[in-house]
Amino acid sequence: MDQIFHEIKINTKGQGLYDFTNQTISWLHKQKITNGILNINILHTSASLVIQENADPDVLYDLKNFFDKLVPMKNELYKHTTEGKDDMPAHIKSALTNNQITLSLKDKKLMLGTWQGLYLFEHRLEKNTRILSHHLIGD
Amino acid sequence: MDQIFHEIKINTKGQGLYDFTNQTISWLHKQKITNGILNINILHTSASLVIQENADPDVLYDLKNFFDKLVPMKNELYKHTTEGKDDMPAHIKSALTNNQITLSLKDKKLMLGTWQGLYLFEHRLEKNTRILSHHLIGD
Amino acid sequence: MDQIFHEIKINTKGQGLYDFTNQTISWLHKQKITNGILNINILHTSASLVIQENADPDVLYDLKNFFDKLVPMKNELYKHTTEGKDDMPAHIKSALTNNQITLSLKDKKLMLGTWQGLYLFEHRLEKNTRILSHHLIGD
Repeated sequence: MDQIFHEIKINTKGQGLYDFTNQTISWLHKQKITNGILNINILHTSASLVIQENADPDVLYDLKNFFDKLVPMKNELYKHTTEGKDDMPAHIKSALTNNQITLSLKDKKLMLGTWQGLYLFEHRLEKNTRILSHHLIGD
Repeated sequence: MDQIFHEIKINTKGQGLYDFTNQTISWLHKQKITNGILNINILHTSASLVIQENADPDVLYDLKNFFDKLVPMKNELYKHTTEGKDDMPAHIKSALTNNQITLSLKDKKLMLGTWQGLYLFEHRLEKNTRILSHHLIGD
Repeated sequence: MDQIFHEIKINTKGQGLYDFTNQTISWLHKQKITNGILNINILHTSASLVIQENADPDVLYDLKNFFDKLVPMKNELYKHTTEGKDDMPAHIKSALTNNQITLSLKDKKLMLGTWQGLYLFEHRLEKNTRILSHHLIGD
């Protein structure tokens, strides 16, 4: 059984969901592992990971909008305000979604449903470079 | 180290939590792997997975009820409404819970707490057939 | 490829976030596995796991406070009230965060971002002993 490590960098331009499904799949295609587990971690706490519908962009808009209403950017609600009005809400949104996703690779194919895509969920307003570690274990 | 893939299909009859713990465990018992990792993925984005208390059915009722209040089925709140008033709330509830769960198998026993059960959380109102992929890696 | 199982016990003293990053890392340092996957599960449904910022303690305060407001301890909101006003909210908070976290070990180093720490999120008011299973698979 082999192990391969990889990093994907995503440059975000403010809040929203960024699809990285193709980046992950095209990397997987180059590896010599046929069956295995893929562990993806985001190495930040103000952005997160979700698996979501990849068909209608309105779903992504509604998702971002729901989380913005649920976790308002109002400094008076939080003690941690020194990094900007969007930072503490970003940590909370991260806790409500995922820091990591574990997926299965079968016959060289990443096991996702037809309508599932992999998304980085950026919660900060400014530009950021986000690192997603990829770790594949299998044979 | 070996790898085994399996699928469990669950026919849901509207919103609610469906216990699949026994289906997973009885499948595990038939495998020749003693120690390993079990990765379970739901291949849909309008239903999700949770580990929850398996003792009092009121817990399941309260969970469903909480999520319904938190994410109301009101078309005026969302842009994505073409698939029904329950579809966008289903995607949001899915993002708030889990698409996948990774568990450990030790001495042929799935490591769950005494009061923990595995549940499919159906968020749609209509009947559905949901597929849960199971991937066991170990020896 | 080898597999090692371990348990960490944490004595909690009421609601809040308990950092166990160092306990996990010091255990990892004693193992003979260089690269692998670490699967951590909490064997309870009224406490959970989160990866969060480890720099400013105010972040932990705001997190706890947000979840308390989102899921109020008011018996009239729930059917499941026999185990105390904090029990059903604890199950809901658990569903909103994580029961398990899967991490990668590379060159003997647990892959976490600079500002990421591992936290047990206790949702009950009373003292508890919480068990976190650790399962390392790698070589």
